[in-house]
Amino acid sequence: MNISHIEHIGIAVRKIADHLPYYENVLGLKCYNIEEVADQKVKTAFFKAGQTKIELLEPTSEDSTIAKFIEKRGEGVHHIAFAVPDVAQALTEAAAKNVQLIDKAPRKGAEGLQIAFLHPKSTGSVLTELCQ
Amino acid sequence: MNISHIEHIGIAVRKIADHLPYYENVLGLKCYNIEEVADQKVKTAFFKAGQTKIELLEPTSEDSTIAKFIEKRGEGVHHIAFAVPDVAQALTEAAAKNVQLIDKAPRKGAEGLQIAFLHPKSTGSVLTELCQ
Repeated sequence: MNISHIEHIGIAVRKIADHLPYYENVLGLKCYNIEEVADQKVKTAFFKAGQTKIELLEPTSEDSTIAKFIEKRGEGVHHIAFAVPDVAQALTEAAAKNVQLIDKAPRKGAEGLQIAFLHPKSTGSVLTELCQ
Repeated sequence: MNISHIEHIGIAVRKIADHLPYYENVLGLKCYNIEEVADQKVKTAFFKAGQTKIELLEPTSEDSTIAKFIEKRGEGVHHIAFAVPDVAQALTEAAAKNVQLIDKAPRKGAEGLQIAFLHPKSTGSVLTELCQ
């Protein structure tokens, strides 16, 4: 699959504002972008730690998948995203190896990236995203 | 805190052997080390993705914290570890900012690293490790 690095770690939170002091003042990571991804019903805040971003995910609606995740499991790590050179090709490879896909084709995610999710049933219960 | 990168992501699994095919054959990450950390009652398997390692954690005893985690929450992401130049100093800084510490002083973790854990109560429910 030619993974180059971990692109980001997605963390579900109730309110981004409540977590900024920890990430900025304790960890010393600077929030460089907050944006809303309307079709995923989330607001996202990004921090950089070396090659990898921390992406805080705040639901903007009660029927957001992030709201449902928090309701079921509480706040915490929601997904891991691996950087690959070609998401479409990586999906084809994964499907050929009997990995269950959430997205059969790449779609547009935060920061204008091409993304697709693999199903946790096939990834050891870790919701896994591929990013290009 | 001068975090340089994400050192590793710890993932709790029942059996490392059951997950090797996914990490090696699907993701294409090579397992370069398996070791037992006796005092934490875990066996660990390491993979590298850019700057960051994936660390699979398999309990070696029923009273291991990883066994208890899996029993309560199922398999999945257990902790995130940030690389810092000086764990002792980072702990002092964190404590001064009212972060609850699990380890008041650095101790020896897998791969001979100096490590310490911050309490999820202070880190937005993400169990957080500092590594040097």
